[in-house]
Amino acid sequence: MRRALALSALGLGATSPNPVVGCVVLDASGEVAGEGWHQRAGGPHAEVNALRAAGGRARGGTALVTLEPCNHTGRTGPCAQALIEAGVARVVYAVSDPNPAATGGAETLRAAGISVEQGLCEAEAAEGNAAWLTSVRLGRPHVTWKYAATLDGRIAAADGTSRWITSAEARADVHRLRAECDAVVVGSGTQRADDPHLAVRGVAGAVQPLRVVVDTSGTAVTPGARVLDDAAPTLIAVADDVTPAVTAETVRLPRADGGLDVPALLDALHTRGVRSVLLEGGPTLAGAFVAAGAVDRVVGYLAPALLGAGPPALAGGGITTITQALRLDVSEIRRLGPDLRITATLVAKEH
Amino acid sequence: MRRALALSALGLGATSPNPVVGCVVLDASGEVAGEGWHQRAGGPHAEVNALRAAGGRARGGTALVTLEPCNHTGRTGPCAQALIEAGVARVVYAVSDPNPAATGGAETLRAAGISVEQGLCEAEAAEGNAAWLTSVRLGRPHVTWKYAATLDGRIAAADGTSRWITSAEARADVHRLRAECDAVVVGSGTQRADDPHLAVRGVAGAVQPLRVVVDTSGTAVTPGARVLDDAAPTLIAVADDVTPAVTAETVRLPRADGGLDVPALLDALHTRGVRSVLLEGGPTLAGAFVAAGAVDRVVGYLAPALLGAGPPALAGGGITTITQALRLDVSEIRRLGPDLRITATLVAKEH
Repeated sequence: MRRALALSALGLGATSPNPVVGCVVLDASGEVAGEGWHQRAGGPHAEVNALRAAGGRARGGTALVTLEPCNHTGRTGPCAQALIEAGVARVVYAVSDPNPAATGGAETLRAAGISVEQGLCEAEAAEGNAAWLTSVRLGRPHVTWKYAATLDGRIAAADGTSRWITSAEARADVHRLRAECDAVVVGSGTQRADDPHLAVRGVAGAVQPLRVVVDTSGTAVTPGARVLDDAAPTLIAVADDVTPAVTAETVRLPRADGGLDVPALLDALHTRGVRSVLLEGGPTLAGAFVAAGAVDRVVGYLAPALLGAGPPALAGGGITTITQALRLDVSEIRRLGPDLRITATLVAKEH
Repeated sequence: MRRALALSALGLGATSPNPVVGCVVLDASGEVAGEGWHQRAGGPHAEVNALRAAGGRARGGTALVTLEPCNHTGRTGPCAQALIEAGVARVVYAVSDPNPAATGGAETLRAAGISVEQGLCEAEAAEGNAAWLTSVRLGRPHVTWKYAATLDGRIAAADGTSRWITSAEARADVHRLRAECDAVVVGSGTQRADDPHLAVRGVAGAVQPLRVVVDTSGTAVTPGARVLDDAAPTLIAVADDVTPAVTAETVRLPRADGGLDVPALLDALHTRGVRSVLLEGGPTLAGAFVAAGAVDRVVGYLAPALLGAGPPALAGGGITTITQALRLDVSEIRRLGPDLRITATLVAKEH
């Protein structure tokens, strides 16, 4: 199953609106007969790829899958049926499929006389598919807020300079993050200050994310802006009474609190098939996402440096007292050159 | 030598103005014959303690010491002489003694026909004695700035509440830090906001640090303040034209930039034998120390939480642009319950 999990991760950033899935097929004697993963939406599912690789050796064997095999016919046929036809004797999967349209695969397999087990490496598989599972549960994309700051929480110096707070290693890692997400979102402040490019560089085989600029007044993205090149698709989100200053794909959204309505933005992205968002905006946009309860994961690149002045990583969010602090769990700490990368995920709330 | 280093660390917080030193004496066959460390200023040095434990077995043996044996007679006799008299054949030490009054031990030993080697575990030994070595090199105490903040660098919420940003595990660790330092320093803002106690609790055998309140106007420490109890000694630093509101040991210092002159404060503490300071002050006092170039190490307790508003960990310091950022090296990362402790030390500058 660990191998299947590793295979599934190869699809991160390329499978939306589908989940990432990995599959290993063992033959009747327990030897690996075939491996596969879901490589892109519309392409064959992981089970089908693994069964193809296994060929006749799948008969009487075991399929290890990171997600419950689907039961419905979408752009591809149901995997449960494919497993039955291949003659596998046993299916072990990690996480049940919460998608109402696709669930029921386990029952179909059992009805065909196949031994079915669920739960192996469930936690790891759920984490690997966190974006997709969140999007199914909440009906909106999973949001990772990424920031780069000093130990004292500043994202730039008093004069606005920020190149570079973090090291080349940390900045390269951001491209990996982008490649794993479906969309990268910034606000008008970042657009004006940095004219960012937002495309993925230096990640082999990466699917470029949708570049999204939240440009409420339609004036931050100006002709010649780097996000307007053809390295990746770009979407400008403006207020519903605004026409942007540039020719680009545009979505008009309701205003809220000096910016755009965050749930409406996420809904628009979800409708486009975006299941995971990397929020690279500055403190104001991040504050709006926090206020909207729309931050699921935080990836902080921390440089061991002090500034003592300059903009903070996060401004706003509507938290006024310590008991309201947005609490997360540290899920990973990693050194990147001289810097640290801290990944923290939202503590599940009972509500 | 690793054992000698571990022994030396047992003296942290209790030996100032002396260094921490550990010593292991091996007999002629290489077996451990005696161990010792410098337990408190005025008490026997590590070598003497280890030689006493070894007794006659030291003859023809080897002494492993974390610091070059001293050559001078202070409150105790020179260790070099004690090693010669005990008849050891070989002395291995990690770090040379930079103290002009005490150096020369190695030459004395060699002159007596003892084989002397230097450099084993030198980096670790230098780190273990960082406070003392800094104080000898710079003529002022070594300063560790400690703060507790959220991931976004806030030390309290917008309404000033901060109990508790970090976990009980992190707060307990602060007592260990205090126990390792000679003095704990806060400013008037922290004194007014928190009425802190600043003594060490829950650390067996700890020597209480000197509690220092930088109370420029002499009005922050009021009768009944917790720092005025008898749990530890207390020093109030006020401006030279001020008489404090309470009866307590007081030092009068020149004013600077709205507070007190930081070098003058450190000089006063150094004169009192303080070799290591734990700065637990708020953003303003920390900023004054940064501006004075008087932060040698940073220990940040980071809670995986977001606030989006509230005071920052550090305010001021005179840094206006990114190239002036105070750069440090991450020397350790540790999880403490849900929180992280990040230790970073000043990058050595060439100047």
